[in-house]
Amino acid sequence: MPLTAPLRGVVPPVCTPLDAQGDIDTGSLARLVEHLLDGGVHGLFALGSTSEVAYLTDEQRGAVLETVVNVVDGRVPVLAGVIDTTTPRVLDHARAAARLGADALVATAPFYTRTHPRETAAHFRRVRDRVDLPLFAYDLPVSVHSKLSPALVLDLAADGTLAGVKDSSGDEGSLRRLLVALGGREGRAAGPVPAFSVLTGSELTVDAALLAGADGVVPGLGNVDPAGYVRLHDAARAGDWSRAAAEQERLAALFAMVDAGPEDEMGRSSSALGAFKAALRLLGVIDHGDTAFPQIPLSASSVAAVDARLRAAGLTPVR
Amino acid sequence: MPLTAPLRGVVPPVCTPLDAQGDIDTGSLARLVEHLLDGGVHGLFALGSTSEVAYLTDEQRGAVLETVVNVVDGRVPVLAGVIDTTTPRVLDHARAAARLGADALVATAPFYTRTHPRETAAHFRRVRDRVDLPLFAYDLPVSVHSKLSPALVLDLAADGTLAGVKDSSGDEGSLRRLLVALGGREGRAAGPVPAFSVLTGSELTVDAALLAGADGVVPGLGNVDPAGYVRLHDAARAGDWSRAAAEQERLAALFAMVDAGPEDEMGRSSSALGAFKAALRLLGVIDHGDTAFPQIPLSASSVAAVDARLRAAGLTPVR
Amino acid sequence: MPLTAPLRGVVPPVCTPLDAQGDIDTGSLARLVEHLLDGGVHGLFALGSTSEVAYLTDEQRGAVLETVVNVVDGRVPVLAGVIDTTTPRVLDHARAAARLGADALVATAPFYTRTHPRETAAHFRRVRDRVDLPLFAYDLPVSVHSKLSPALVLDLAADGTLAGVKDSSGDEGSLRRLLVALGGREGRAAGPVPAFSVLTGSELTVDAALLAGADGVVPGLGNVDPAGYVRLHDAARAGDWSRAAAEQERLAALFAMVDAGPEDEMGRSSSALGAFKAALRLLGVIDHGDTAFPQIPLSASSVAAVDARLRAAGLTPVR
Amino acid sequence: MPLTAPLRGVVPPVCTPLDAQGDIDTGSLARLVEHLLDGGVHGLFALGSTSEVAYLTDEQRGAVLETVVNVVDGRVPVLAGVIDTTTPRVLDHARAAARLGADALVATAPFYTRTHPRETAAHFRRVRDRVDLPLFAYDLPVSVHSKLSPALVLDLAADGTLAGVKDSSGDEGSLRRLLVALGGREGRAAGPVPAFSVLTGSELTVDAALLAGADGVVPGLGNVDPAGYVRLHDAARAGDWSRAAAEQERLAALFAMVDAGPEDEMGRSSSALGAFKAALRLLGVIDHGDTAFPQIPLSASSVAAVDARLRAAGLTPVR
Repeated sequence: MPLTAPLRGVVPPVCTPLDAQGDIDTGSLARLVEHLLDGGVHGLFALGSTSEVAYLTDEQRGAVLETVVNVVDGRVPVLAGVIDTTTPRVLDHARAAARLGADALVATAPFYTRTHPRETAAHFRRVRDRVDLPLFAYDLPVSVHSKLSPALVLDLAADGTLAGVKDSSGDEGSLRRLLVALGGREGRAAGPVPAFSVLTGSELTVDAALLAGADGVVPGLGNVDPAGYVRLHDAARAGDWSRAAAEQERLAALFAMVDAGPEDEMGRSSSALGAFKAALRLLGVIDHGDTAFPQIPLSASSVAAVDARLRAAGLTPVR
Repeated sequence: MPLTAPLRGVVPPVCTPLDAQGDIDTGSLARLVEHLLDGGVHGLFALGSTSEVAYLTDEQRGAVLETVVNVVDGRVPVLAGVIDTTTPRVLDHARAAARLGADALVATAPFYTRTHPRETAAHFRRVRDRVDLPLFAYDLPVSVHSKLSPALVLDLAADGTLAGVKDSSGDEGSLRRLLVALGGREGRAAGPVPAFSVLTGSELTVDAALLAGADGVVPGLGNVDPAGYVRLHDAARAGDWSRAAAEQERLAALFAMVDAGPEDEMGRSSSALGAFKAALRLLGVIDHGDTAFPQIPLSASSVAAVDARLRAAGLTPVR
Repeated sequence: MPLTAPLRGVVPPVCTPLDAQGDIDTGSLARLVEHLLDGGVHGLFALGSTSEVAYLTDEQRGAVLETVVNVVDGRVPVLAGVIDTTTPRVLDHARAAARLGADALVATAPFYTRTHPRETAAHFRRVRDRVDLPLFAYDLPVSVHSKLSPALVLDLAADGTLAGVKDSSGDEGSLRRLLVALGGREGRAAGPVPAFSVLTGSELTVDAALLAGADGVVPGLGNVDPAGYVRLHDAARAGDWSRAAAEQERLAALFAMVDAGPEDEMGRSSSALGAFKAALRLLGVIDHGDTAFPQIPLSASSVAAVDARLRAAGLTPVR
Repeated sequence: MPLTAPLRGVVPPVCTPLDAQGDIDTGSLARLVEHLLDGGVHGLFALGSTSEVAYLTDEQRGAVLETVVNVVDGRVPVLAGVIDTTTPRVLDHARAAARLGADALVATAPFYTRTHPRETAAHFRRVRDRVDLPLFAYDLPVSVHSKLSPALVLDLAADGTLAGVKDSSGDEGSLRRLLVALGGREGRAAGPVPAFSVLTGSELTVDAALLAGADGVVPGLGNVDPAGYVRLHDAARAGDWSRAAAEQERLAALFAMVDAGPEDEMGRSSSALGAFKAALRLLGVIDHGDTAFPQIPLSASSVAAVDARLRAAGLTPVR
């Protein structure tokens, strides 16, 4: 399904269910997609960081995207992450995603290399130029160790390179400056790039981002509680900010599951992604909570902590 | 004037006017204090980063605080920054601030040293123990290169060490998690530490912080437009989030003055503080726009950019 | 050619000549390999950072390694970089490298992800376990944003996971501590892991590393002047530290070519790799100085600066 | 005693003995100074990071410097750290140091603030201009979070601002580039600034730095074993690099005491400085091992680890 311009709403980054051997569990993935669509989401983002894209082989990436596209079957747009170190490698992923039916691409700045903003701009321009799909910039300094400046994003929006940005930088001040430059909450339609979509990747400040004029949200926690984020989004669209903030608070308390795994025992990716998957297994959506190697699995007591967070947030584990 | 508990409202960090010799311009400082009080602010924070505290000698720090306390004369509470590398040096500043009549102290974590969170906790506890004034933690990773975790802040709130926190970390997700742990926007009074005050130091996300339940704001830009921040605060308190966000947008556009000085020519402190002071001079509040050595002064064209930002925000330069 | 244990000597990371279309120039690559072997090097490292591995598609990586292995034809061992974000993706590269005849593998810690040292250890263990080739750890914080601690390296050496480490961390104090723990310059043979190889990746401190007991060096600048690094190595092996240091100084002056491209115009990868390739073209070794997209090419004046560095170091451009 | 130009040799940063109340133990400090002079050192650096300068009040700083200057009584030059956030505050310390008889000053770049290299240059120039003592730049990114580039240091050397640099950056490649730019190991006298002194602050790479042409070393560990560093220095001056490296290895093993305190229990400052002081107490040089508040004290088992390191290095505890 083609994207609206701008793309708006709740667009969760879809977790990738794995079995104990590390293989894609396509049955669970299909059920997860239905769970998200049942929750009322407005799009899906496959092969993002929350999808453990950095741990998936090219073959696995293909299997994931094929499954998501087939299950969605045009009901919402499917964005595909094309995550790799630099342009030539990203282009290989982008061509594969186009073949498999993605509706849009999501790319980060180059990483591993030491890259100048001018080179980052050329990178996005070439990806857009070579593969004919709308392109979103994925601003993720925690992974790529550079920040996309509002000025760079604006340039790439203005010349048609970017259809939008997914801002996972955690820098809400910078996000605000970008939104103001685009015309502000009331002035976007009359602004320089009306079709440009600004999405926040932060699970914890969605009410704030929507109040500031963001178009939508790409919440990892949205795998666990898509309906909650849709309610938050709907309240914001209705101008009921108290209700939006109350929903956000409930989700912020639920989000604390990302600390289920102790910091001295495992990486933060393992803890957060392990918690999301444990929650999805407890809720009966997927069959296994396994994360990709070499991530360390959550212990039973960590899973119990996830269970407690679910119950406190009004979600009911079925196993 | 003693603080309310929790302290609420707009508490600008007061700029320190200097003359061309780098001496404190106490006349201008007195006028700036009146300008802020006229704007309706609820407290003043002297000797913070925006006050160029890191550039002031101990003697100058004393002169600044004495002037502010005398001019305020009990109309609002005066918080005093006690910024130095470690506890013994902070205590010297804290004792001086107490002598000069400060109503509360604001201290950062130790810096320059490589300090463990347990040591940071001991630091705040000793400052509170040795000087009998309410103590605020100043979370400012850009200067001290460590972040105060919500867990640490909660511990220090719970045991009575901290009266509040000024969060200038720019990490709004962390701020949200702290506020939720304190009981959330509706549940603070019934939460674990009802008197604890959470203030944001970010100029750009005040509407969001207040929506999340923060008690107030410490905006550097509030020197230039205190009435704007007070209107934003009042709108938020009244639950008129559209008006709050609109005011925030106007202030975000005004805030862009901090980039008046080119990045390849001067430090970001010089550019931001130089812009605030240039604006105050253009508005007729202070006599000189000079910043402390070794900050590089704004060029005439940079000052012209500040002038343009003022006019665009509806503020009228008088020179 | 199988590796000695420990691997010793000069093992340059081979540049990857490209034509103006960004395709592998295998003819130039073959000449570069002969240039290095003529210089007397003791091994070659293909598909490292200096090879622009992060910019090469999988197909290009295969073409590079195949060319290098074929041209070398067993004269020296060929190490192959298997650079990717995490274990499953690294394993795909490792299997390809084994098929193409690499004599050893070189892998970094996971990147893009937030990984715990325990996970990094599991990563190296699985790569070694699944592909039967000696494995070197590539310590490159500037790219992967984590540092391999001496303790971790020692563990992985002791259990047979690692055949060696290429230390490009720039942390010479840490390198010294590792060497001392391995038995020191005289005590390595009687130390805990006599066959373990310690290679420095720093072009500028090779004399120091060899004095401290390192086994060899992997110098990017060794593409340009392999004979110089071999002379430096030979002087050190002969205990003639004055001669070693003098050669190092000449090479340090030559190394300044990495700053040929201005910092405000291009990334540091572009400048350094562009300079090495410009030098190789000027010396008549390769046909084109092009670097991979999106790196910005050196200007004519930057190439002239490279030319001047070559002449000052006693190397004679032929074009 | 006036400095030679360049200053050469072993110049330990003198620890500051404290009693259990955190007061300066001047008796122990006097004995420590004699211990260092007995070891044959060529100068002393008071009020550096190893002196816990960041934890000392202005009054304590004065007491320390006065004691050191009086005890030394002209036998070697005394350098005084003037560590504070910015120029105006540094100048206050510099004037105090001059009054107390320091022979030279040692200043870092500004910290806490966000400072441009042009501002850092102005900072050093003004300190030199306003206080008539030779000035050393202290390059300490771990504390001040900026690095002095070789180009900046060269500029400040060339115009007479700096008498030397203490490089504690750990960036030995940068140090090498600076030394080569100054003329190299044989060419310093004929280089652009013959009197400029380059001192390394790294305990672990002194042989390497001297091989590269550095003039001396400022080793924190030199408090514990000054004679060892003097032997290392003498061997290097005699061109006996094997002996220098062997001494360096012994000192590197001894240096491991800095990890005596567990990372999850205390800051790295506490562990390293606590170990040096514990060692000095065990060796009978000072009376107490206490470090300044809020540093966490070493446990008995950590002190036992220090004891073991001393014995392994051939030093004999007397208590």
